Amino acid sequence: MSFHLLENRELQQISEKFRRSPTQINQFLESDAELLRLPDGSVLAATTDCIAEEIATGLYHDPAHIGWMTVVVNLSDLAAVGAKPLGLLLSESLPADFPNEKLQAVQSGIAEACAATGTFVLGGDTNQSETWQMGGTALGLIPAAGPIISRKGAQVGDVLYCSGSMGLGSAYAFEMLLAAQGQTTISYRPMPRLVEGNLVRQFGSSCIDSSDGFLHALCNLLEVNEIGFKIEIPLTQMAHPEVMKLHKAKQLPAWIFLAGPHGEFELVFTIPQKNEQNFLAEAQKMHWSPLRIGICSEEKDCSIRLSDGTYQPFYPCQIANAYAESNGDPKLFLTQLLKLETQWQIQKMNC
Amino acid sequence: MSFHLLENRELQQISEKFRRSPTQINQFLESDAELLRLPDGSVLAATTDCIAEEIATGLYHDPAHIGWMTVVVNLSDLAAVGAKPLGLLLSESLPADFPNEKLQAVQSGIAEACAATGTFVLGGDTNQSETWQMGGTALGLIPAAGPIISRKGAQVGDVLYCSGSMGLGSAYAFEMLLAAQGQTTISYRPMPRLVEGNLVRQFGSSCIDSSDGFLHALCNLLEVNEIGFKIEIPLTQMAHPEVMKLHKAKQLPAWIFLAGPHGEFELVFTIPQKNEQNFLAEAQKMHWSPLRIGICSEEKDCSIRLSDGTYQPFYPCQIANAYAESNGDPKLFLTQLLKLETQWQIQKMNC
Repeated sequence: MSFHLLENRELQQISEKFRRSPTQINQFLESDAELLRLPDGSVLAATTDCIAEEIATGLYHDPAHIGWMTVVVNLSDLAAVGAKPLGLLLSESLPADFPNEKLQAVQSGIAEACAATGTFVLGGDTNQSETWQMGGTALGLIPAAGPIISRKGAQVGDVLYCSGSMGLGSAYAFEMLLAAQGQTTISYRPMPRLVEGNLVRQFGSSCIDSSDGFLHALCNLLEVNEIGFKIEIPLTQMAHPEVMKLHKAKQLPAWIFLAGPHGEFELVFTIPQKNEQNFLAEAQKMHWSPLRIGICSEEKDCSIRLSDGTYQPFYPCQIANAYAESNGDPKLFLTQLLKLETQWQIQKMNC
Repeated sequence: MSFHLLENRELQQISEKFRRSPTQINQFLESDAELLRLPDGSVLAATTDCIAEEIATGLYHDPAHIGWMTVVVNLSDLAAVGAKPLGLLLSESLPADFPNEKLQAVQSGIAEACAATGTFVLGGDTNQSETWQMGGTALGLIPAAGPIISRKGAQVGDVLYCSGSMGLGSAYAFEMLLAAQGQTTISYRPMPRLVEGNLVRQFGSSCIDSSDGFLHALCNLLEVNEIGFKIEIPLTQMAHPEVMKLHKAKQLPAWIFLAGPHGEFELVFTIPQKNEQNFLAEAQKMHWSPLRIGICSEEKDCSIRLSDGTYQPFYPCQIANAYAESNGDPKLFLTQLLKLETQWQIQKMNC
């Protein structure tokens, strides 16, 4: 059984008329940020991301938080290619009657995120629009001497890691959109993993951020690299404490919170076994404990090791596509996920 | 009498919380594209522009034309700093029910504009939104050895030029929004002045594009450089033939079509007198005839030479602000402009 991300097929369709630049290193959909070789050998990383649905659905509500996220969603793509940020361009679409106080709060959130990540707003564009939208473009640089990393490059036998615990993004979304509707006690203010991404670039073979959730990230790596993954730890072990709280309070399986599509801006990456020791030594020096979660396998599917030592298959792309098939309705999506759990007996997976 | 662009004051307000990057060469609002010094001495030019109001008001209607303009509005800012395009990032916000055929037409327009200008789509982002919006970011490079140019740098005595005739953007807007409402015989498919901008960068002292119209461009140069302009030719001489047609057919003064806010993506620039001869020689080699329109003056106002040799003052910033004060209503704006004509006796200006 093999699946592809519906989203990627659609993106492919709308981009098929475009010719690739000869200076672009990455192929279409093969990198979180576009990578361009500059004349001196260094690499320019560029990425654009717009916060639109998140505002329209009420997932993001607080103006300062929306400003913060505008910066983070873009910088996280630079983190996934290990680029050092040069700065950001903003594209703000605001309704005519947008209150000045609210706008100032948005700008404060942007300024705070820039200060926290050591980057700068370079410029931007404002437009009047019926729909409030916050677009951004992040630019970064990778030195000429350094290796590059993208989503593509994972080999069979490489070790699968993530930069931190997973599921906070979905836990937050569950609270905001389904449980408490507009209110949550969950603190969701992700920091892009810029320093960690820079290290992964030096030792890793592939990297993607979990902006769309862990399983969505896994699905992208699987598609691009034509490999599979054997997950060696119970999914509960990689779940954020807030996920485990909801798991207990709401009797919901923990793996559901790894399904996205709203993620936590961690990194999911692969390290060749020969680099693993040096990578971990450097990570320790910066007091970072990446989580070892599995191995890249030849079979183009995913499976997870059960407590009895056998492997249970599961299908991250089908999980990710369930969201598209639910037309973005979070309630319907949850129902779909619970159906998949029964169908695949995912409860056996210790989650 | 001195005026400032209202728009610039608003932009200043929403940006005052942001710290400037130490690698950024230009100050806020002083360049069409942001200029960043890279480690090898070359300069990265980056700019973002979104087509939103143009679609919402019906000014842009044809999907392929909207695709074309998405590319051009961004590349034109690179032209104004004389940068060579590296490529574009797109940020497309589309309603859920956006027909696939229409989307394909948009993408074709983008691909055509890229082919016509020798540039590439590097990547992008699509979002679902109630409002159709087309955002873009253009990236370009200026070689380490070359001079740089921005809006700032014009000196008293420098010669004012424009890259071609002016007013086509407003003539098109007049037709689409006021006269024929959604239909026009005017062909409006501007080409960014990339090659010309590269030449201006080598000989000029300041440059801006006429994306918001000629008088708006003049107003920006005036503010940033703290100078004034003496226009030496009748405005009719710099007006596009379509402007003169409308002038005759509708008994409207020609200068009104230079008022923006919808421009034609030409360049407005200044050349120090000592460079003028060499500049014109190089322009001739590429079969380009820039239009010499005036001189930078010490008085921070604008005036135009009348047929009797005297100078008549006029106030481009007040003209540009009339649009903001009309709340973007084109009919009200036109009424305001006609009032200014009476007030300032602009009819004497041979237009």
